[in-house]
Amino acid sequence: MMMGDDVENGNLGPYLDRPRTFPNMRSKPYTPLISEAIRDGAEGFFKTQYGTISKMAVLLALVILSIYLFRNTTPQQESSGLGRATSACITVAAFLLGALCSGVAGYVGMWVSVRANVRVSSAARRSAREALQIAVRAGGFSALVVVGMAVIGIAILYATFYVWLGVDSPGSMKVTDLPLLLVGYGFGASFVALFAQLGGGIYTKAADVGADLVGKVEQGIPEDDPRNPAVIADLVGDNVGDCAARGADLFESIAAEIISAMILGGTMAQHCKIEDPSGFILFPLVVHSFDLVVSSIGILSIRGTRDSNVKVPLEDPMTILQKGYSVTIILAVLTFFGSTRWLLYTEQAPSAWLNFSLCGLVGIITAYVFVWITKYYTDYKHEPVRTLALSSSTGHGTNIIAGVSLGLESTAIPVLVISVSIISAFWLGHTSGLVDETGSPTGGLFGTAVATMGMLSTAAYILTMDMFGPIADNAGGIVEMSQQPESVREITDVLDAVGNTTKATTKGFAIGSAALASFLLFSAYMDEVSSFAREPFKQVDIAIPEVFIGGLLGSMLIFLFSAWACAAVGRTAQEVVKEVRRQFIERPGIMDYKEKPDYGRCVAIVASASLREMIKPGALAIVSPIVVGFLFRVLGHYTGHPLLGAKVVAALLMFATVSGILMALFLNTAGGAWDNAKKFIETGALGGKGSESHKAAITGDTVGDPFKDTVGPSLHVLIKMLATITLVMAPVFL
Amino acid sequence: MMMGDDVENGNLGPYLDRPRTFPNMRSKPYTPLISEAIRDGAEGFFKTQYGTISKMAVLLALVILSIYLFRNTTPQQESSGLGRATSACITVAAFLLGALCSGVAGYVGMWVSVRANVRVSSAARRSAREALQIAVRAGGFSALVVVGMAVIGIAILYATFYVWLGVDSPGSMKVTDLPLLLVGYGFGASFVALFAQLGGGIYTKAADVGADLVGKVEQGIPEDDPRNPAVIADLVGDNVGDCAARGADLFESIAAEIISAMILGGTMAQHCKIEDPSGFILFPLVVHSFDLVVSSIGILSIRGTRDSNVKVPLEDPMTILQKGYSVTIILAVLTFFGSTRWLLYTEQAPSAWLNFSLCGLVGIITAYVFVWITKYYTDYKHEPVRTLALSSSTGHGTNIIAGVSLGLESTAIPVLVISVSIISAFWLGHTSGLVDETGSPTGGLFGTAVATMGMLSTAAYILTMDMFGPIADNAGGIVEMSQQPESVREITDVLDAVGNTTKATTKGFAIGSAALASFLLFSAYMDEVSSFAREPFKQVDIAIPEVFIGGLLGSMLIFLFSAWACAAVGRTAQEVVKEVRRQFIERPGIMDYKEKPDYGRCVAIVASASLREMIKPGALAIVSPIVVGFLFRVLGHYTGHPLLGAKVVAALLMFATVSGILMALFLNTAGGAWDNAKKFIETGALGGKGSESHKAAITGDTVGDPFKDTVGPSLHVLIKMLATITLVMAPVFL
Repeated sequence: MMMGDDVENGNLGPYLDRPRTFPNMRSKPYTPLISEAIRDGAEGFFKTQYGTISKMAVLLALVILSIYLFRNTTPQQESSGLGRATSACITVAAFLLGALCSGVAGYVGMWVSVRANVRVSSAARRSAREALQIAVRAGGFSALVVVGMAVIGIAILYATFYVWLGVDSPGSMKVTDLPLLLVGYGFGASFVALFAQLGGGIYTKAADVGADLVGKVEQGIPEDDPRNPAVIADLVGDNVGDCAARGADLFESIAAEIISAMILGGTMAQHCKIEDPSGFILFPLVVHSFDLVVSSIGILSIRGTRDSNVKVPLEDPMTILQKGYSVTIILAVLTFFGSTRWLLYTEQAPSAWLNFSLCGLVGIITAYVFVWITKYYTDYKHEPVRTLALSSSTGHGTNIIAGVSLGLESTAIPVLVISVSIISAFWLGHTSGLVDETGSPTGGLFGTAVATMGMLSTAAYILTMDMFGPIADNAGGIVEMSQQPESVREITDVLDAVGNTTKATTKGFAIGSAALASFLLFSAYMDEVSSFAREPFKQVDIAIPEVFIGGLLGSMLIFLFSAWACAAVGRTAQEVVKEVRRQFIERPGIMDYKEKPDYGRCVAIVASASLREMIKPGALAIVSPIVVGFLFRVLGHYTGHPLLGAKVVAALLMFATVSGILMALFLNTAGGAWDNAKKFIETGALGGKGSESHKAAITGDTVGDPFKDTVGPSLHVLIKMLATITLVMAPVFL
Repeated sequence: MMMGDDVENGNLGPYLDRPRTFPNMRSKPYTPLISEAIRDGAEGFFKTQYGTISKMAVLLALVILSIYLFRNTTPQQESSGLGRATSACITVAAFLLGALCSGVAGYVGMWVSVRANVRVSSAARRSAREALQIAVRAGGFSALVVVGMAVIGIAILYATFYVWLGVDSPGSMKVTDLPLLLVGYGFGASFVALFAQLGGGIYTKAADVGADLVGKVEQGIPEDDPRNPAVIADLVGDNVGDCAARGADLFESIAAEIISAMILGGTMAQHCKIEDPSGFILFPLVVHSFDLVVSSIGILSIRGTRDSNVKVPLEDPMTILQKGYSVTIILAVLTFFGSTRWLLYTEQAPSAWLNFSLCGLVGIITAYVFVWITKYYTDYKHEPVRTLALSSSTGHGTNIIAGVSLGLESTAIPVLVISVSIISAFWLGHTSGLVDETGSPTGGLFGTAVATMGMLSTAAYILTMDMFGPIADNAGGIVEMSQQPESVREITDVLDAVGNTTKATTKGFAIGSAALASFLLFSAYMDEVSSFAREPFKQVDIAIPEVFIGGLLGSMLIFLFSAWACAAVGRTAQEVVKEVRRQFIERPGIMDYKEKPDYGRCVAIVASASLREMIKPGALAIVSPIVVGFLFRVLGHYTGHPLLGAKVVAALLMFATVSGILMALFLNTAGGAWDNAKKFIETGALGGKGSESHKAAITGDTVGDPFKDTVGPSLHVLIKMLATITLVMAPVFL
């Protein structure tokens, strides 16, 4: 094993005296070369990855088609003359459109970030503020496209079906049944998002872990050092893993949430016999359209000081971003109140709109609290990360134990917050005054839906902050590789550090909204099963042994999925480690900048490995609920237990959601905390860089990488994918 | 930081040339001195720990008393003239007796093991087979006492209440209502077991991790080296953590399982109007009495070869133990069939007994499969641990990632097995022919109960194999410290390695039986709520938002409890590390055997820290269900939702059980696999002792220690404690 003497002694000194880059990289035109290599790598991977995903999507579309051609129709569909063939075509078309839009959302995120990175790195030469502005605007552009596509895609589908099926004309479909036709769109979106997140997540973290283990730990060269053969793969990973995948993730969150809220709004409006239900159905689309406006204003409020060419000391970028967030939140609250008054006012319950706007406020506050909690547990300004850093001083083992317990502990407050917000939104809705034909209050679930909309009403701004991170990270990498002055690197370093925090907080936000959205989708599932089975499906009773077992299997699914996703990163990283070690041995000149490493080979290895590794966990997630539902349907058939399949799947979904939320919170927070504990030590605490504590902290960071950037985010998507797959695949369980 | 040069270079050579012990330890009478130090440490800790537990138990008894004095009585109690005061006294008396018996069970385990260790170490000087025999018989003695106490305690309570309350005489209680009075016993047992396991688990692993981190990793001295100041604390920990705590754990498992099976048997017999229901009620006691007999035969079948004084090469001890297990299992199957025919034969359903004996067979097979699966995932003869060991060659980080994913993956097959056994036992019971007054089949749940009994029908033998481990481990420590010849150490090493495997498999067994037992206790809880609330309580519908939130809180409880238990070990271990480092700095002569380390100080530090640290997680576990139940009872009262508190607690219990089973499986298996991956490398694979792979494997082992010996086993107990606390505290939720 090769061990640089300097690092072994905790001393990075000699390195600083060496030339900092390869001879041909010192020439001016090298910066574009690096960014081109990153762009090529990212676009090449995207193409292959989405090629594979497309094939799977088409296959799945055929499966859905054949299932729907044999499924029963609902009484509503029959009364509106919607035949099996039409219903099958609608679902499949919606599925494919959802998949396509999700793919485009991912592509835009990646396209923008591989172009913005080099612009940010060159802006950093001029002024910090300008670099910040370019990064934020680039992230903002992607974010607006992602949210906009979700809204427009659903609006187009809705309008098309409305006109095509002649909705609300006599003898055809009622408008309140229309949203149920859109579920395919949500499933398509989450299907693509799942594989995008898995493939991208495995790619980025395998490259990162592999590069760090040999580069930082064994050879003692800094992050993004051009001598590391895996450095380009690592930078490509930021784009395909963070930008493309998170884009697809939030696209799918918003799409799923809009559709489930439309279904619940429609069902409630029908129960309450509201004369014009379209306000309740279209409300989510309006809220998210306003999101586009208010988030744009928030993004534009972050201005560069172009006129001053002097390098003024940069205000803390986090403060600037948070000012923009405050602007967005205030505007969001105002527009939310306006939209509820406009669309949710009904004469049957004159004050209902006010209750629903309070539900929205509950959602907005929940989002804010989630962001704050994540910051508390992952920022080294606070107690938990400092305690974690301290535990590194007694070794690798105590660092891991402390990180695991920090992550497990961090699940508690978010769960309490989610509990309080579900209950309060439910009761606000319940007491809104809306009653069904029997006079009992029915607004509860829709209240929860409105809270979810409130939570997502600043999604575009949150996504901007998230996308900003990898762009800054990449810009830093380009600066490091092309030997810019130290002052430039300092600017990108500050931006990168802020990006790490915003990335962590976005995950908190994403998991909170996933929790709420799943609860809605679950209700939509029960509604759908009722209509297809033509009997009420109101209860999921876990005292029935089979249903309890469905729950047990659901929780187990989360553990097994996490295991496979985690192992995939570990295996791929080991391949990278071996390749990098091989290059260092076969080309001893690399360390003295005399030989150039073969970046392309690492890119190729990571790309092919992550495509291979994403299949197993992805397939597990898609196949399990279908198989379980089908098996218990058959068992129920033989034991005289109707709807058993649907009930078992419902329990599977609920338990998987609960376990998934907790597991994702654990993994995201532990990973973020390990990362920042390492950064805290690198500021000079507890011995600083190169000390034994630092080595232990690097081990923690390595373990945290797949936790927070592969498995955790994949679980967000998995939770929602499970909810949409059960909606679409319900005929299999009945 | 002190770093022995030899270890830094992966070289243990120089150590071997040094004298192997302190001068005064070389004298013959030193062996008793060591064992006396261990005994004093263990008994001292036991005394303080159980002093604290007793105070808490008395406090809790007062709380229960006051709750029961204000609770409603059931119609059954009223018709039998059982007043509030009597009912309160009965519950409190049962609780205190359960707590006392559990304490005695723990004490016996510890008492035997601190005396057997020195006998085993001296037997190892004579013959390997004799050492094995002594260790097994000592473990067997404790195991029989533990199982016997559970049976006798319940039998005495049952008989006392039967006579005192004049059961079955006109105007008094019916025999089928009697088992419900015993729930306090189960709660007392699990209350003590929880704190015993937490305190003991923190003690043993903090001492172990602390000793290893400085001793093995920093100073490069072997395990149990007399120069390590924490070595006595480590050896004491084996006794208080493994022997005492596991004794209390399985005592509580058996007690809880007997009581819940008696309740279910009684309820079913009543519904089916079986003339003499006592067979169904007493069946569990009979099964466990037979367990004492068949396990004794199994234990006695392991014979020493006293006559041959020559050292014959030892047969693999694992094979010998497994032969004994086979003997026990065969006898258990036979006696089980016999007991079902004897007690469960009823004229109403002549073939029911056969169905129930098949249920028992399902349980026995489940136990066997669980043991086998655990072995597959934790034994280095199989693929998973070898892959884990391989991942150590790329560093600490990849080792941890691989271990985490191995542990997460290992939950899948046990969950499938548990699912299949619950469903098949339920259906065997359901189709047994027993029907209630309306003619619908009712035997399902009792079938599951019988399967649980089948699973636990070889508990005494399994517990013997478990207790055997720490005794052998301790004997090895004494041999190492008192400078016995290498050949003696080899014998105890082999026994220790076998003990590690049997310890891991017992945990698989314990978690499987906890899963089944919790499902029974859950049904008993629903029965109890029905009788007290005087309305049917048949469903736990997780589609109700509050009930869903109860589930979310239940799963969160598991995560938070694990976090706190894990952090407790980490914190205490850090204290040990600091103390050991301090001693090495202040007494530089220790390393050359010139100065004696201060063992007592480490013992004192660990003892006081673990007593302090056990309170927080323990209190969380006890307080949470009560607070949640009470809050939602109040909320339900104001929102017109009767039984809301009881339903929310039911969901909390179910979700906590599911998450707890998965988390415990994950932690136990990951810990066991890390331990054996290290052992595999120590056999010379992948560079062997002192290599970089070995260092990474030691990190994994350190992380695994609290996983498998503190948090995992505490979760087994927690799951059952939650089930019994809800039974006893039900009046708070109604």
